Amino acid sequence: MTALTDAVKWNADGLVCAVAQDHISKQVLMVAWMNAEALRRTVETGFAHYYSRSRQTQWKKGEQSGHLQKVRALHLDCDGDALVLLIEQSGGIACHTGRATCFYREWDGTAWQTRLPVLKTEQEIYR
Amino acid sequence: MTALTDAVKWNADGLVCAVAQDHISKQVLMVAWMNAEALRRTVETGFAHYYSRSRQTQWKKGEQSGHLQKVRALHLDCDGDALVLLIEQSGGIACHTGRATCFYREWDGTAWQTRLPVLKTEQEIYR
Repeated sequence: MTALTDAVKWNADGLVCAVAQDHISKQVLMVAWMNAEALRRTVETGFAHYYSRSRQTQWKKGEQSGHLQKVRALHLDCDGDALVLLIEQSGGIACHTGRATCFYREWDGTAWQTRLPVLKTEQEIYR
Repeated sequence: MTALTDAVKWNADGLVCAVAQDHISKQVLMVAWMNAEALRRTVETGFAHYYSRSRQTQWKKGEQSGHLQKVRALHLDCDGDALVLLIEQSGGIACHTGRATCFYREWDGTAWQTRLPVLKTEQEIYR
């Protein structure tokens, strides 16, 4: 599967930016990073795998929380440095805070307002 | 407007990842980068400004092509290192190749396939 990874313009750290989007609502759920191994594992297994820059390791999204992301389509941009994954979000929760999406803060002209409810507490998710 | 930029976790280069999404179709159009000045200019003017890592300068999207992006909403993620802009795309073309979105390549299991038509040639856009 060199075709898969050869088209990607990996950054200096060997990573590419990946946007996960709900395949039906089209809501952007999260932005994370992949290394080549995470991208290969994503395609091979059909479930999103990312690379954690803080933990310096590959991880399967939802491994601990159960909030897996089943990949329905995978897109690459014109210059090859960003991916979009159209996914099915298990549990309808992508964010570790228990919200549907990580992008729950909105700029109202003066401040960042929290817009979305916590569907499940972190304690409930990671018990 | 320190509240705007203080909530952002800027990377080592002083940049944050920004995803532009059509405010109606919710199609992801492009992923680019912003520095603090580009984010401030985006909010002040209501039009998307980004930071070019190759040219090392701030730019207004559509300045040359006319394909401006009017910002309808601005979201920040849980850890503050990614933005989503819900925008109105002038001309219905976000990509420099003349396609609606930069994410016109799709993985079909074997190869990256080009899925979207060129609505306007680069020559026509940048004449």
